[in-house]
Amino acid sequence: MAKDLVLALSGGVGGAKLALGLARIMPAEQLTIAANTGDDFEHLGLSISPDLDTLMYTLAGVDNPETGWGRRDESWTFMAALSALGGENWFQLGDGDLATHIERTRRLRSGEALSAITATFCRRLGIAARIVPMSDDRVRTRLRTGEGWLDFQDYFVRQQCRPEVSEILFDGAEHARPQSDFIAALQNPALRAVIICPSNPFISIEPILALPGIREALRATSAPVVAVAPIIGCRAIKGPTGKMMRELGLEVSAMAIGRRYGDLLDAYIVDHSDEAAASRLKIPVVATQALMQTLSDREALAHVVLETADCVAK
Amino acid sequence: MAKDLVLALSGGVGGAKLALGLARIMPAEQLTIAANTGDDFEHLGLSISPDLDTLMYTLAGVDNPETGWGRRDESWTFMAALSALGGENWFQLGDGDLATHIERTRRLRSGEALSAITATFCRRLGIAARIVPMSDDRVRTRLRTGEGWLDFQDYFVRQQCRPEVSEILFDGAEHARPQSDFIAALQNPALRAVIICPSNPFISIEPILALPGIREALRATSAPVVAVAPIIGCRAIKGPTGKMMRELGLEVSAMAIGRRYGDLLDAYIVDHSDEAAASRLKIPVVATQALMQTLSDREALAHVVLETADCVAK
Repeated sequence: MAKDLVLALSGGVGGAKLALGLARIMPAEQLTIAANTGDDFEHLGLSISPDLDTLMYTLAGVDNPETGWGRRDESWTFMAALSALGGENWFQLGDGDLATHIERTRRLRSGEALSAITATFCRRLGIAARIVPMSDDRVRTRLRTGEGWLDFQDYFVRQQCRPEVSEILFDGAEHARPQSDFIAALQNPALRAVIICPSNPFISIEPILALPGIREALRATSAPVVAVAPIIGCRAIKGPTGKMMRELGLEVSAMAIGRRYGDLLDAYIVDHSDEAAASRLKIPVVATQALMQTLSDREALAHVVLETADCVAK
Repeated sequence: MAKDLVLALSGGVGGAKLALGLARIMPAEQLTIAANTGDDFEHLGLSISPDLDTLMYTLAGVDNPETGWGRRDESWTFMAALSALGGENWFQLGDGDLATHIERTRRLRSGEALSAITATFCRRLGIAARIVPMSDDRVRTRLRTGEGWLDFQDYFVRQQCRPEVSEILFDGAEHARPQSDFIAALQNPALRAVIICPSNPFISIEPILALPGIREALRATSAPVVAVAPIIGCRAIKGPTGKMMRELGLEVSAMAIGRRYGDLLDAYIVDHSDEAAASRLKIPVVATQALMQTLSDREALAHVVLETADCVAK
């Protein structure tokens, strides 16, 4: 049987870059991207799914390359008017971005599943790859900090990751059902590779791994599981990964993340600068240019990822 | 006792113009404007109050003079993005206008009354006059047409008033309590005048008159009740008033509207061109320039209205 399906596990920005690279170098309709929804939250009465949206906007080519979130050519009239009315303005919502949240919220309230809504949006935006929420059930990442337990967006946006993190939990994960297309892809005999994208392991990938049966299915699949390090040298490429690792008592390094994924992985891809240290892992480590600045960087990394998967395939 | 309070009953555009005129020629904090909420509706999960908003934006000086609804210097990124996602786009929502609807909806869901929310918005927008919804309870104008009973905005916006109207009802009005500041103003011994603004009688003023006790209180007050005709010659100044009157079997004239208000009125203000016909009413009729094109037209008409009220005061 031709093994031509690819499954990627992804958070927001870094994961979306690699997902775009993958979608451009393979038949995109054979690519399934399972997105973290632990960051989802309700704000101003709207249901917001930041990682799903970053993936959608990136794969549709309407992402904002300057901010890393939200939409290109965005306007901000809503935020200005909301501030004038005294509304909560700590979370930036662009005018075009609002359409996604308002339409999603309306459909969720009418009883549609998040995955069905996402599929409609992707079709309307001309996205051939299948982007699915990790689960249609509610999972919420919460962080224990010096200021008590905080909701993810409260920590991440309102407090800009300033509080020190001592523990992370994924509220609802133990009873959430993995979305059906996600689990079907993971169990499909035609699966060529599972890619763990270069997203923050603690807040973007581990919520997905925390769903019932996912770790077991990753161990059981005959497809190779390949992760890409979200850290280059001792610095996270983007976001609070490094700060979080220090606070959790972990060494800030690509190797520490490789170790954390442990026996889930069949291969690990790191930046050239981390080759020496990461080669101490017990799995094949491939060093390449892991920083994705241009579109061709994304495609090149996607090529390395798929070649590595094919290489270690049983 | 000094009689210095003024109460205006108003719908949207035409009423808002006169309300602005009043607010500019008298101490605005002594002016209460009771707004029709029969046009209110839920759309895309948002609670929208068109007449309240037109009054708010007009009195705050942020109204859109070209459209007659919505905000000045508006952007339309949301509508374009919503259309791209396949959302319902028959009702135009500007990006800045959305802030009003989202913040209002959030507060209504948290249990605040529409009147309290409106008061906060007015304060934030620097409006000294008191704008109150006619009721904090739900009233919905519905129209019986050749296509059956239609919700107001379905008739008014989606179908652009095309269906022929044979009957109008104000669903919920008989059990709705008039808003407390509205009824307090109406019963206040210091009330100088009640002004019925030049709004569509059938869909803007009669929902207010349909609330329990309002017609009785208008008859009981010692303050003069003065209406301004929303029709000049045989043409409504704006909107579907003329078409509606024909369909309801009424003569399209200022006099027919004066007759319809009947014994509620102590005086009636019409345009110069309608003086002869309207003088056949049994109450004092004052002819003036009723078309409000400029800001000074609005102030001039407001002066005539208050002078007429003082003139007919008992």
